[in-house]
Amino acid sequence: MSFSITILGSSGALPAYNRFPSSQFLTIQNRHFLIDCGEGSQMQLMRFNLPYHKINHIFISHLHGDHYLGLMGLLFSLQLQRRTNDLHLYSHRGLDEIITLQLKHARSALNFNLIFHEIDSSPSQIIFEDDVLSVETIPLRHKIPCVGFLIKEKSKPRKINKEKLPKNISLQQIASLKLGHEIRDENGNVLFTNKQLTLPPKKSWSYAYCSDTAPDQSILSIIKKVDVLYHESTFMESEKEKALETLHSTARQAAAQAKAASVGKLLIGHFSARYRDLEPLLVEAQSVFQNTSLAIEGETIDLDE
Amino acid sequence: MSFSITILGSSGALPAYNRFPSSQFLTIQNRHFLIDCGEGSQMQLMRFNLPYHKINHIFISHLHGDHYLGLMGLLFSLQLQRRTNDLHLYSHRGLDEIITLQLKHARSALNFNLIFHEIDSSPSQIIFEDDVLSVETIPLRHKIPCVGFLIKEKSKPRKINKEKLPKNISLQQIASLKLGHEIRDENGNVLFTNKQLTLPPKKSWSYAYCSDTAPDQSILSIIKKVDVLYHESTFMESEKEKALETLHSTARQAAAQAKAASVGKLLIGHFSARYRDLEPLLVEAQSVFQNTSLAIEGETIDLDE
Repeated sequence: MSFSITILGSSGALPAYNRFPSSQFLTIQNRHFLIDCGEGSQMQLMRFNLPYHKINHIFISHLHGDHYLGLMGLLFSLQLQRRTNDLHLYSHRGLDEIITLQLKHARSALNFNLIFHEIDSSPSQIIFEDDVLSVETIPLRHKIPCVGFLIKEKSKPRKINKEKLPKNISLQQIASLKLGHEIRDENGNVLFTNKQLTLPPKKSWSYAYCSDTAPDQSILSIIKKVDVLYHESTFMESEKEKALETLHSTARQAAAQAKAASVGKLLIGHFSARYRDLEPLLVEAQSVFQNTSLAIEGETIDLDE
Repeated sequence: MSFSITILGSSGALPAYNRFPSSQFLTIQNRHFLIDCGEGSQMQLMRFNLPYHKINHIFISHLHGDHYLGLMGLLFSLQLQRRTNDLHLYSHRGLDEIITLQLKHARSALNFNLIFHEIDSSPSQIIFEDDVLSVETIPLRHKIPCVGFLIKEKSKPRKINKEKLPKNISLQQIASLKLGHEIRDENGNVLFTNKQLTLPPKKSWSYAYCSDTAPDQSILSIIKKVDVLYHESTFMESEKEKALETLHSTARQAAAQAKAASVGKLLIGHFSARYRDLEPLLVEAQSVFQNTSLAIEGETIDLDE
């Protein structure tokens, strides 16, 4: 029942100091997702021994190269490894055309279904949902249409209190208890209340990924109280003008967003190539929002209780 | 006056064990070239501290992803770094269209001229030439149109024998001596023969790059006696059938080509992901052609005398 986020790339548009462009691998209750897929993502997935062939959904925030140029290589590799499962791709219009053209010139066709889901930048909408989680878009403010992603676990089943459980209870009744129902007799009378036999469910986690954006108050209502917020921090406050001009954020601005949205933890990334040492960005962010970490490639944030 | 080849990627189509897809950086008499540009080439160029912003000519052997998917990222990075010099790109038709489409969806335009030179696969032809070297194509046998590249230095200037040089000789006369001419008086009579005042020029080097190909006797006349032959060795002889089916070569076949063409040195690469340890491929090749090396990323073959 884990919820984990592994950083594959933490670099801004220009890779530097062995930092790779944006990409993150998520594992949520045995489902595997890729968020953005910058150049070299497949090498990072392999390097960190992640089960990339189990990824069934890939979310691309926008069509700047540093957020998707690793996708074609990953698709070719999955093809070489004889993938047959469907793969769902969520992106703004255009990526489908780019993939089709590259396949054409390679005189190749994928031997699995690549199912393209077109993203509209605004308003926020749910683009994926199953029985345990949902993914919705976060409209961002950048030079081209761009969205972040909010991933939320749904309520988890209540935990059975084994010490209190009567012996003659059926598997069907256990399933019913997990969903929060009471145990009744054939006439509908309550034999045991749910509270008598169960404990509260595990926490449902939430994660917001804000890839490339100027700080934007209008997203606060969407990211409010998420457990972890990844917010780009391309620059430091000393380059505030540059951030404004390029529609990126400073570390301080990212931290101010985290604070205003009362998130649990802030993760900063998308670092400009001008910063070899990232510690000053961390210090700047922490001066506004203490529970901040740097996105470090290969590191996993594990939200399991 | 150096001639050096730096390996950026030695992997076959599926990257593995931190080996990157095909790419090589060449420096020849202060000219800088890129041959193939697999995913991650820009990161490798940066990692090995190579002056990638000085590359003016990029040669792409064919449009399988592992040979060009790093190009778009490199172009975006050069753009970010405010390149203004022309960049020449040599490739089969299609790559121009792929680049244009990706720029369109990024709503971006390059601020330097990208000059596209379309390659025909056959017959062999000179595609680049200046006063010190030429690049010609080597038609290869692969699943899609594919060429290798033969890079040949032209004859170098004769060296002035300073011990023998008369004192009153002009700069113009020195330039003339370097080109192999005699020194004559105003009536055209020889005062000094060229041999009296000069020594033989430095060696002119040649390099043949054969990216993806089944072994093909028809290229022997083109690669004959090159100083260094890079020939793909995707498989070992034990996978000969697989090599035949995919139009790749085994280490033994690459070595047989080297031997038949009487080359100086063989470099093997484009290793399948099935080989973690490359030593057996080297041993197999060396059993046929002793002067063989593995293409190791970050290593430079320097042909300077």
